[in-house]
Amino acid sequence: MKNVPYRIYLDEKELPKKWYNIQADMPVKCQPALNPQTHKPIGPEELSAIFPMELIKQEVTQERYIDIPEEVQEMYRSFRPAPLCRAYRLEEALGTPAKIYYKYEGTTPSGSHKMNTAIPQVYYNKKEGITRLATETGAGQWGSALSIASQMFGLECMVYMVKVSYEQKPYRKSLMQTYGAKVTPSPSEYTKAGREILKKDPESLGSLGIAISEAVEDAASRKDTSYALGSVLNHVILHQTIIGEEAIKQMEKIDEYPDMVIGCCGGGSNFAGISFPFMRDKIADKRKTRFIAVEPAACPTLTKGKFSYDFGDTAKMAPITMMYTLGHDFVPEGIHAGGLRYHGESPLVSQLYHDGFIEGRSVHQTKVFEAAIQFARAEAILPAPESAHAIQVAIEEAKKCKETGEEKTILFALSGHGHFDLAAYEAYLSGKIGDVEYTDDMLAEGLKCVPSIECPSI
Amino acid sequence: MKNVPYRIYLDEKELPKKWYNIQADMPVKCQPALNPQTHKPIGPEELSAIFPMELIKQEVTQERYIDIPEEVQEMYRSFRPAPLCRAYRLEEALGTPAKIYYKYEGTTPSGSHKMNTAIPQVYYNKKEGITRLATETGAGQWGSALSIASQMFGLECMVYMVKVSYEQKPYRKSLMQTYGAKVTPSPSEYTKAGREILKKDPESLGSLGIAISEAVEDAASRKDTSYALGSVLNHVILHQTIIGEEAIKQMEKIDEYPDMVIGCCGGGSNFAGISFPFMRDKIADKRKTRFIAVEPAACPTLTKGKFSYDFGDTAKMAPITMMYTLGHDFVPEGIHAGGLRYHGESPLVSQLYHDGFIEGRSVHQTKVFEAAIQFARAEAILPAPESAHAIQVAIEEAKKCKETGEEKTILFALSGHGHFDLAAYEAYLSGKIGDVEYTDDMLAEGLKCVPSIECPSI
Repeated sequence: MKNVPYRIYLDEKELPKKWYNIQADMPVKCQPALNPQTHKPIGPEELSAIFPMELIKQEVTQERYIDIPEEVQEMYRSFRPAPLCRAYRLEEALGTPAKIYYKYEGTTPSGSHKMNTAIPQVYYNKKEGITRLATETGAGQWGSALSIASQMFGLECMVYMVKVSYEQKPYRKSLMQTYGAKVTPSPSEYTKAGREILKKDPESLGSLGIAISEAVEDAASRKDTSYALGSVLNHVILHQTIIGEEAIKQMEKIDEYPDMVIGCCGGGSNFAGISFPFMRDKIADKRKTRFIAVEPAACPTLTKGKFSYDFGDTAKMAPITMMYTLGHDFVPEGIHAGGLRYHGESPLVSQLYHDGFIEGRSVHQTKVFEAAIQFARAEAILPAPESAHAIQVAIEEAKKCKETGEEKTILFALSGHGHFDLAAYEAYLSGKIGDVEYTDDMLAEGLKCVPSIECPSI
Repeated sequence: MKNVPYRIYLDEKELPKKWYNIQADMPVKCQPALNPQTHKPIGPEELSAIFPMELIKQEVTQERYIDIPEEVQEMYRSFRPAPLCRAYRLEEALGTPAKIYYKYEGTTPSGSHKMNTAIPQVYYNKKEGITRLATETGAGQWGSALSIASQMFGLECMVYMVKVSYEQKPYRKSLMQTYGAKVTPSPSEYTKAGREILKKDPESLGSLGIAISEAVEDAASRKDTSYALGSVLNHVILHQTIIGEEAIKQMEKIDEYPDMVIGCCGGGSNFAGISFPFMRDKIADKRKTRFIAVEPAACPTLTKGKFSYDFGDTAKMAPITMMYTLGHDFVPEGIHAGGLRYHGESPLVSQLYHDGFIEGRSVHQTKVFEAAIQFARAEAILPAPESAHAIQVAIEEAKKCKETGEEKTILFALSGHGHFDLAAYEAYLSGKIGDVEYTDDMLAEGLKCVPSIECPSI
């Protein structure tokens, strides 16, 4: 038997009871979000049309720790902790002296980390009398998680699913319907935004931007309905810190601490979820841990984007936030990690990246699938293509350790399983997947639409 | 916090180190398997053309416990134990005083219990110098598990996949290929059996019977190759007792013992895997536990079949065994639990059913999907349609407890997740799934082909 077990769990009693709010510790605070019409800092009353007050508070609070409500803990207990796994066989395959660990979120009912925020979001809405939620989904991972959580608490769930996904991925729709959600292809006839687009182009295949507009309009127009978002926002990232808080306790059990933490990064919630609790020690100057956010070369927000105020959606309905962005009009090439195709980035991740706490790394998808398959063949688990971005960099870093002989401890987030993504694997295996290299010229057009908005004095 | 945790795990040190062989304790022993040509008891030397000697020994041994080799334990450690889960929310939804537990095998890399035997089968083959395995797969669950296990130990894996599944389920093929397996639609040009069928019918969609014949021929014709089967055989069931052995330890931790154990039953490996370790106490007259094997009404082997010697496959190439059978020519209606469409039944389960240790129950698939969705909405996990057969009966039994007020302890096997089965859910949700009621007349034809073979005197 190995010294360190293959999988490290926690007892229910050891599960974290608080989320960690990195806003309390950031040396430079985030700039305030702005109203998309007035460009003035957006107030709680404006947000209350679409969010419950408790989540709005979590969006701005400077409290270091937020108690996880007992009812949410109860739900977490039914599928958490996510196991912390030691990648013995991958280490062996690489011949590296590095110790590789991964935190595996694929054992949740939705197959990814999205459940961690879906549950508290539904809970707080229910507590404030909301009986129905509206959201958008692209690939379907977030829509699935919210459908499950809504069912758990007895709320209705309305999902605007990008039409091209709705048609290409009928099974995702069935999954959400199994949990009682209502799913419509977007653009739809249900909203003004949808109807206007359909009038102009009845064959529109939709986009995440359009679906967000529909969900926001739906929520804003009904008193019983809130809007729910699966990434980017501060409260979403707060909830995801359960990942890192658990990982810390699991690593303590085996007397380990990571030299580097690696996560894939689209909107940022998975990366921040595993990283921020460890980053607390780095900000306090207690540790020198490296944090690596991995993004697709086809959507290089951190590595090639601009740190600026920009709109969160194409239709300019969502708040303006200070973030790394490729421009709200930027539409990345169709890649097979749909969860990483967002033009912007979480304001929290953006600020900390700007201030040097995070490294950015962009990788090509053919390399990502190569790493995914190497991982699957060594560790048996089939990773989601999004998660495989982190794997690729973890392998790269482990290979560097082989060269230098350093026994570094690497921790990465395996945010979901790939059992829903076999079409992508099929495409890769049959040689149908290529790479996109964005030159600065190609990115210039998207960046041009980033508005020139100064940070308002508060 | 509840008294009993939602999920109960075991430390690596607590994992079972032995499989349980119920042959040692059966009051009436199984009849010997017969050579399909001579109808004489089949000897080890005949089986050695397609199986390694260690598995042949496990097929017939009367030893009560078989040590799990250290290398197999090592592999088990990377994904076991399967959690034992308390179905608090399902109990609440049903308003039952019963305590419902389920052993969830969906967290393994292949998403089902099939890994438990794939690993030792590959291990023993490797140890005896075999470098390549041939197998058949219908729905794809077994082929996936064997592909993963072969990759783990560095063996080649050749999968004959029923052509209709190969075409309808391209993702399953991609999954196996990701793990390095070679997958061919069956009937294929690779074997004499396949070529003969293609000559007669170039458009043949194949069948499990044909695929078995191809895989057996492949293995028999090459010295480097063995055949591997995912259910039915004694050694497969032996390996699956890891499920029940773990469950016993997990239940001991919370001071529980089941009043009834429920599992879906196709070839029998999942049902036997969870049941046999508990049945040890029943045979020894220490407990009165009930064991319920649940099968589809569309393939009612135990409940309407005949206890008789019959062929394991359509082509009459596999050994003849004493079992409950609907006749080796019986082809059940296409139902959505492909893993339960076998005409026969494990000889061990058959004998114990015959001797009154097991109850049989047949259920209709519309009821099964209804139960699956009720379960998913309560417990969040999407069950495989096969596993949902057990859920349906567990719910029925829990409802009886509600009527009688009895606080029974129910344990069922949740043998896999349903993330690969969304086409079936889609069909159910859109009202495209019906039920088949087999009358005795309809079954009579299949039963007619059951040969009249007497048990030979040994």
